Amino acid sequence: MEKVKVLDCTVRDGGLMNRWMFDDGFVRSLVAATRASGVSYMELGYRASTEFFHPSEYGKWRFCDDEVLNEFWGQKDDRTVLTVMIDVGRSNPADLGPADRSLVGAVRVACYAPQIDEAVEATRILADLGYETFVNVMAVSEADPQALDRALATVARHSPARAVSVVDSYGNLTPDRTRVLVRRYLAALGGKEVGFHGHNNLQLALANSLAAVEAGATFLDASLAGMGRGAGNTPLELLLPQVGIPLERLAPLFSLLETDIPLLQKELRWGYQVPYIVAGLANHHPREAMDLMDRGLGAVSSGYFGRAATAQA
Amino acid sequence: MEKVKVLDCTVRDGGLMNRWMFDDGFVRSLVAATRASGVSYMELGYRASTEFFHPSEYGKWRFCDDEVLNEFWGQKDDRTVLTVMIDVGRSNPADLGPADRSLVGAVRVACYAPQIDEAVEATRILADLGYETFVNVMAVSEADPQALDRALATVARHSPARAVSVVDSYGNLTPDRTRVLVRRYLAALGGKEVGFHGHNNLQLALANSLAAVEAGATFLDASLAGMGRGAGNTPLELLLPQVGIPLERLAPLFSLLETDIPLLQKELRWGYQVPYIVAGLANHHPREAMDLMDRGLGAVSSGYFGRAATAQA
Repeated sequence: MEKVKVLDCTVRDGGLMNRWMFDDGFVRSLVAATRASGVSYMELGYRASTEFFHPSEYGKWRFCDDEVLNEFWGQKDDRTVLTVMIDVGRSNPADLGPADRSLVGAVRVACYAPQIDEAVEATRILADLGYETFVNVMAVSEADPQALDRALATVARHSPARAVSVVDSYGNLTPDRTRVLVRRYLAALGGKEVGFHGHNNLQLALANSLAAVEAGATFLDASLAGMGRGAGNTPLELLLPQVGIPLERLAPLFSLLETDIPLLQKELRWGYQVPYIVAGLANHHPREAMDLMDRGLGAVSSGYFGRAATAQA
Repeated sequence: MEKVKVLDCTVRDGGLMNRWMFDDGFVRSLVAATRASGVSYMELGYRASTEFFHPSEYGKWRFCDDEVLNEFWGQKDDRTVLTVMIDVGRSNPADLGPADRSLVGAVRVACYAPQIDEAVEATRILADLGYETFVNVMAVSEADPQALDRALATVARHSPARAVSVVDSYGNLTPDRTRVLVRRYLAALGGKEVGFHGHNNLQLALANSLAAVEAGATFLDASLAGMGRGAGNTPLELLLPQVGIPLERLAPLFSLLETDIPLLQKELRWGYQVPYIVAGLANHHPREAMDLMDRGLGAVSSGYFGRAATAQA
């Protein structure tokens, strides 16, 4: 466990539920609590391009401008690397300036398997600018195995990325299947490291993360209270004690769980909800379940459960 | 997975949160939905003695009189065995009549390791009456290893019980430690089967249940929405799909999750709550955390978190 590095993605992934419109005071408290906890990376948002997203419709963590980061992060420290994510096709990696003029230390590039060439190109540009880079290949539970193999081989051969994460976008994985995927990624990546990003539809995100480590993964994503799209992510407060962080370093995070999180949870309603369980079991993108939640409809009464059961049978 | 038998304990364990005062309509719907789902055992409550508990203070599922069971269960079927639990020291096993005059097919005897002789005696009385019997040794994460070994050896030698369950009363176990315990129980029990009763403080109840099966366990406890004391149990709706039950048999249970469960959850507040996380991490009985919940106090602001952190350090 001592080799495991935890990446907090509370603001980046939680922002998928509120267009990154977080209260500034919450983000300030979260940054302080997370940096104090022993987390290795804190991903504060997306570095999206305003070419693709209008700033009037999204909060500041969709763009993570350097001025915003300067204001909220203060100074670099030796413990926690400030990280941003870019989505292939929604960002221009060359928009980032040289790393030595930014507080950002690492950039993660998210893509689907067929977009791997663009992702690799982005990591090369970013590495030339001085950033540590990572690749997240999304929706792995429905990816075509050949496209996935090709994607991993391409990263191994052509990308400076330090690690590639197994991303259980649909919350469908079990510990057994997670182990298999992590081993496959490690074998295909020829010396690069492997990470894991879990989703909690089936309350297996933490267990899958521990299984990923057993299989050799060294980077684990998590967010406070699991905040994130749909059923949410691996809960940070549960993961940190399991990787050996002493409780005494977690008091500020647990305090936030009892002060700010209940209000956010009530408003954004990520987490353990029946439509998300059904989506996880059926290996579906969460969009239909999120739509039911937005409209206040039940998974059973709306017919979503029945369709999932018929598809399974 | 085909050897695994699931035991539903929603009413029995959920009743710890409301003194077994459930709405009759809810229990009727739950019985129908659970029997339709493919659950092998349904534990409807405790068969406690009115010597120890006054019927005016507890609901009917604290006592599970035969007339009540006749009314709610109807007829025996081949699929689901109606089960009751007795607590050593709070029940008189001889109060149960012969099994052939009761709808009850199985009785589980709950005890702590030092009470094992009484538990074994109870299983002998119950087996003579014609019931299938099981033993749950509670609070295993803090049991003295020698007392536990002695307890298991005593059951192996002197009890007709079919299986003994590993009971993670404090919700402190991980998949790794669960596997170790299940293997130890199997080795000590000389041919008897082993079950697992998880608690969900660390969102590991389902993963621990799957790990228990990997290690050879054949009985798994669960309750709808995990309803139970404190953080609750393994969620039945998550466990059944993992042991191979097709979704189409689960529609009535998922329907209850969207109709009756949200109201019960709001009232009884079992589940993922910060005080229960702290209790699980600290390997504490949930009573202090339940007291904080009752009084509306936070785990951090009340000092409970700080005491747990100090004890760990």
